[in-house]
Amino acid sequence: MTRLEKFRQLMAEQKIDGFLVTQPENRRYLSGFTGSSGILIITPERQAVATDSRYYEQVRQQCPDWELIEAGYDFVGNMLETLRQFELGARRVGFEPGHINVSTLNSWERALKGRLVLVDTEGFVEVLRMRKDQTEVASIRKAIAVADEALVHVTQWMKPGMTERQVAWEIESYMRTHGADAVSFEPIVASGPNSAMPHARPTERVLQAGEPITMDFGCIVEGYCSDLTRTVCLGEPADTKYLEVWYTVLKAQEMAEDGARVGMTGEQIDKLARDVIAEAGFGDYFGHGLGHGVGLAIHEGPRFSFTYPHEVPVGAIMTIEPGIYIPGWGGVRIEDMAWVRPNGLEILTAAPKEPVLNL
Amino acid sequence: MTRLEKFRQLMAEQKIDGFLVTQPENRRYLSGFTGSSGILIITPERQAVATDSRYYEQVRQQCPDWELIEAGYDFVGNMLETLRQFELGARRVGFEPGHINVSTLNSWERALKGRLVLVDTEGFVEVLRMRKDQTEVASIRKAIAVADEALVHVTQWMKPGMTERQVAWEIESYMRTHGADAVSFEPIVASGPNSAMPHARPTERVLQAGEPITMDFGCIVEGYCSDLTRTVCLGEPADTKYLEVWYTVLKAQEMAEDGARVGMTGEQIDKLARDVIAEAGFGDYFGHGLGHGVGLAIHEGPRFSFTYPHEVPVGAIMTIEPGIYIPGWGGVRIEDMAWVRPNGLEILTAAPKEPVLNL
Repeated sequence: MTRLEKFRQLMAEQKIDGFLVTQPENRRYLSGFTGSSGILIITPERQAVATDSRYYEQVRQQCPDWELIEAGYDFVGNMLETLRQFELGARRVGFEPGHINVSTLNSWERALKGRLVLVDTEGFVEVLRMRKDQTEVASIRKAIAVADEALVHVTQWMKPGMTERQVAWEIESYMRTHGADAVSFEPIVASGPNSAMPHARPTERVLQAGEPITMDFGCIVEGYCSDLTRTVCLGEPADTKYLEVWYTVLKAQEMAEDGARVGMTGEQIDKLARDVIAEAGFGDYFGHGLGHGVGLAIHEGPRFSFTYPHEVPVGAIMTIEPGIYIPGWGGVRIEDMAWVRPNGLEILTAAPKEPVLNL
Repeated sequence: MTRLEKFRQLMAEQKIDGFLVTQPENRRYLSGFTGSSGILIITPERQAVATDSRYYEQVRQQCPDWELIEAGYDFVGNMLETLRQFELGARRVGFEPGHINVSTLNSWERALKGRLVLVDTEGFVEVLRMRKDQTEVASIRKAIAVADEALVHVTQWMKPGMTERQVAWEIESYMRTHGADAVSFEPIVASGPNSAMPHARPTERVLQAGEPITMDFGCIVEGYCSDLTRTVCLGEPADTKYLEVWYTVLKAQEMAEDGARVGMTGEQIDKLARDVIAEAGFGDYFGHGLGHGVGLAIHEGPRFSFTYPHEVPVGAIMTIEPGIYIPGWGGVRIEDMAWVRPNGLEILTAAPKEPVLNL
């Protein structure tokens, strides 16, 4: 079944006669359209892209099986007439409440004058997006390869005395000039005590020999994201605890990567890693979940997390990123990406894991 | 009056007892908080930032006059109790309908159980943001200076045979390594027939001598944006029409820059430039407005546009960017930034305007 056929099956189950897709990744996933603005109109029989004049030619090229609706900059103004062409039997039109703002919904309600009923339908496309097909996996593999290469490059290049921001820029510019269309998020480079913050932003802090340095970054190729984290120490660690923490995180990651099985919930897979960290006495220092889905978005479903009691579907692409963060001291995180296969996780990341870089 | 005092005046006029600010630039404008997540709670007497643990320390540093509400990742779960501390007399709580999605509003409505009434209030902070103060102008001047420098650099560096994407990357990397925190939007480099599209994205097309090349870019310094466009030709123009078009656009820009006066509407200022282009016979080829406000956001109010019949306030910072776009042939756009002063526009952009670059 195609993506669109699966989507129509969900529509039929919920007795929805038409659907308006506004979320950019969802739009791209179903139609192939990559423009920054537009609305997909999907009925059981027809599919169309409504957009403005900047994108008419692009829709014709990217979406040969979709009708183009030349909506200009005033979709709302002609919304009722546009949707009437689609003969929506029971008049129930689904929309994405997490992806349109309250002002837009109000203007849609006014435009439809009660003749069509807008129906709140969270997560239709997001559920389909969890299971990746071969084309998607191929693109993600490319994005991972660029990040892996950048890690090798930057670990050979970086030296004490450079700032976090310099290293972040080197990572970004390497990826952007070696096949990436964009970064998937602003690179994190967090050194010394800053590495105790999982979401630290790069600062002007100067890298010191002997302290932990966490680098977390990724890029976008063909619309798909990668995500990679390594923590390293430049030269001899100043504190012996560093290696203890580093190898605990590695062991936690290995337990999850080797132990994850189809049928387990996100919570159970998270626990494989969490137990290792707790047993080593660092249980209070691993606050976030073990991993998240990656695809057209850098964070998407499903989750490896204590808050995700659902089964993780075969075909998902996930991060596995345990960490230990000790306030005032620093932290370690090691992150791979993996594909959920019928017999377990296939690790896609190939970047080396080395706790210490020789100076 | 401080920003917050002006905001409270608007609240009083609309009989609003409390306000929840969620839009990131609005949040920063009122409180100074630059984090990616959080909600401002403002009442006539108190002001607070509710955010998650990533930002507690940052709020203490950036917002010394604001209370910190340690909301964790579940603001909604404790929303009613949190807001009750603020003793909201008439129970009317303003929110920003253009900046929260329908799911969030639904969850807020459920959490408040009808005990507080959410009131739709578009544009409160946006109206205040139109008039820039000295601190804001100083930051914008810095962002403009970096873009101006990048223009000088790239026009000396670029050669026929390079691709649009190479030039775009050179512009971006120059700005990011010469004082910019980020780009204010993905740089546009559009050559030959691509320059007929006002919003073209850089492609692998190779620059040819003799054809128009439009470069439109800007950066962010201290949170504030710049925006700059120049069209150039590498060597002798292949078509004499190029210089006719280029000087028409320049003349249109000069008419607006010299002729704008306080008290004129955005429509009238737009017309100063539009008339020049129409008289030269290119009236059908200038589809967009003459300019937009720039500040914390790259596009904000007010507008110089045929759709903006309101007066443009003193203190606004605007782009002036007439263009002529001839399908199949190419286009020219020249864009400056200017500050609306009591006696007219003060042009802030200093980048040179040259139709032809010698090879």
